[in-house]
Amino acid sequence: MSYLSQRRVFVSTAQPLKSNEKADFQENIKKNGLENLLVHVKDDLDKCNEIILDKLHSSVPLIPELAKYIIAAGGKRLRPLITLASARLCGYQGTRQIPLAACVEFIHTATLLHDDVVDESHLRRGLSTANTVWGNQASVLVGDFLFSRSFEMMVADGSLKVLKILSQASAIIAEGEVHQLVTQNDIETSEQDYLKVIDSKTARLFAAAAEIGAVVAEKSEEEQKALETYGRSLGIVFQLVDDILDYRGRDDRLGKGVGDDFKEGKMTLPVIVALSKATATELDFWKKTLGDLNQEEDDFVKAYSLIQGHEGFEYTYKKAQEYAHLAKEALQIFPESELKTAMTDIVDFSLNRLY
Amino acid sequence: MSYLSQRRVFVSTAQPLKSNEKADFQENIKKNGLENLLVHVKDDLDKCNEIILDKLHSSVPLIPELAKYIIAAGGKRLRPLITLASARLCGYQGTRQIPLAACVEFIHTATLLHDDVVDESHLRRGLSTANTVWGNQASVLVGDFLFSRSFEMMVADGSLKVLKILSQASAIIAEGEVHQLVTQNDIETSEQDYLKVIDSKTARLFAAAAEIGAVVAEKSEEEQKALETYGRSLGIVFQLVDDILDYRGRDDRLGKGVGDDFKEGKMTLPVIVALSKATATELDFWKKTLGDLNQEEDDFVKAYSLIQGHEGFEYTYKKAQEYAHLAKEALQIFPESELKTAMTDIVDFSLNRLY
Repeated sequence: MSYLSQRRVFVSTAQPLKSNEKADFQENIKKNGLENLLVHVKDDLDKCNEIILDKLHSSVPLIPELAKYIIAAGGKRLRPLITLASARLCGYQGTRQIPLAACVEFIHTATLLHDDVVDESHLRRGLSTANTVWGNQASVLVGDFLFSRSFEMMVADGSLKVLKILSQASAIIAEGEVHQLVTQNDIETSEQDYLKVIDSKTARLFAAAAEIGAVVAEKSEEEQKALETYGRSLGIVFQLVDDILDYRGRDDRLGKGVGDDFKEGKMTLPVIVALSKATATELDFWKKTLGDLNQEEDDFVKAYSLIQGHEGFEYTYKKAQEYAHLAKEALQIFPESELKTAMTDIVDFSLNRLY
Repeated sequence: MSYLSQRRVFVSTAQPLKSNEKADFQENIKKNGLENLLVHVKDDLDKCNEIILDKLHSSVPLIPELAKYIIAAGGKRLRPLITLASARLCGYQGTRQIPLAACVEFIHTATLLHDDVVDESHLRRGLSTANTVWGNQASVLVGDFLFSRSFEMMVADGSLKVLKILSQASAIIAEGEVHQLVTQNDIETSEQDYLKVIDSKTARLFAAAAEIGAVVAEKSEEEQKALETYGRSLGIVFQLVDDILDYRGRDDRLGKGVGDDFKEGKMTLPVIVALSKATATELDFWKKTLGDLNQEEDDFVKAYSLIQGHEGFEYTYKKAQEYAHLAKEALQIFPESELKTAMTDIVDFSLNRLY
């Protein structure tokens, strides 16, 4: 029995690839409050989507099959949209940002695929992830392919500056992911550790995505730095809100379900706040549930109410507001325009995903 | 309980990091018949090893810890040695090849780490690999870090030509690994499929390693192509012999034990030959053992004798000899030198690993 025929039994139980991917993107973009931004870069995003599909081509059919599954499934293209918008905000009239935006999406997708890898220990805990469709090995290897292809595309662009920004971002993302793994189940993780993790694993790619827009437009260091700060702050807002949503949100975030962070013992800010104010009994609860991953059915509800009681969500949201302010402030050096307003709006949208 | 304390129980059962890494390399190089080559590039290799250790540095200690474990454990530095030797064969007097040789080793190590990832299905079959020490997720993420760090180092070198060669090689390696995954357990895999897989997953990095030596030396296209052919052919020899050793060899190859390919149902040339000449009963045996991975205790011995009976090892060795010839022929355009002789000798050594 071949690899594919072994797997096919699983494939049929998975969400099928939608036939009309374009309609999907647009629906997602609408749902995610990105319409105003899209008005300004719609043609660029269409071309970017074409490049994405084109560059997935391989003589090994499993590569586009698996990659399309994850790229098409619910992707709102937030990171490539940031690259496309930044380049236009800088008045760039060329097209170099379009394949580079595809590179950013490939790096993001590779990270998602690698995040999905299940550990032996996690399997034992009875969890399963999206990679159960094709298996760990395929997820890892297709992720590697996307990552390498992304670098090939950057090399074709030919800018060492862009290559530097994106290769550094990639190394820092990987470092952040390992850091997160190390802090997982460690109830002594501090707010500072947590902020370092999310700055690395999430915010750096947003930062790089925005910065390269200014680089292709050959704008000054000041403008490059401003867009880098915009992207990074937006990325932190995004992650902070995601970490709140993991406790009180909806299940429609890509590949994540409510309660996943709790199940895996991830140390996110809402929990860190609750831990910092925990009574001795509460501390025992967190040690048992997050430290030892010994969880009973009602524990998630209990965790939720402990966080709520210690205002962990409010604190996290307040932090997100601070970063949202930084993101918007960073755009101040650019002249007023509808595009600038749209870029400001997505910061607010990221905050408002909560409601 | 933190991630690290959970893991520590495993770490103590694993082979410890040797204290004197330098002595280890030298022992490995001697054991692997690379001494004659080393004479010419010893200083370069020492510097390359320093760069490797230096560039593993991270604020997250698990990264150097895990990476050193795999980089130090039995590495013979064959691929970086090829880069170092190629640059010197081209008369290059500079030092750019040294960090680039480290890049090549990082890409190789990332691939090893990702190869180690265990699938749920494989776990069910009771296999375990080196990654049981730190787990799948850590192996994947540290591999990603090495891969990204490698690109950062290439960008620092600044040659778009080198970046192109190594990013293409990386994409092709990933493609080859996925291709191998797809052919795994597929007893209809042809010799042509197999050769395509090993050309991608193994030979391309050898080819790139050799070619970039000529590129930093600014040699002509002809010399770049000659070294690329040398590296690629040597890589194929290396893999063909490895595939024989998996049935009749020793257990001292990095991270591999005799019989691993059989256990996983990998379609290698010795098996493909035996399958092409199989009787109906033999075909049933291969379907059961490799196709369905339904294996009993004596099946490996039976597989061995079937391959032996159909001259699968001889055929594979003959193929290896053909590629060894191509590798040596490719060096003919370079003037005679002791270094050239040493580079020819490692081709013969690769063949002679069998005995």
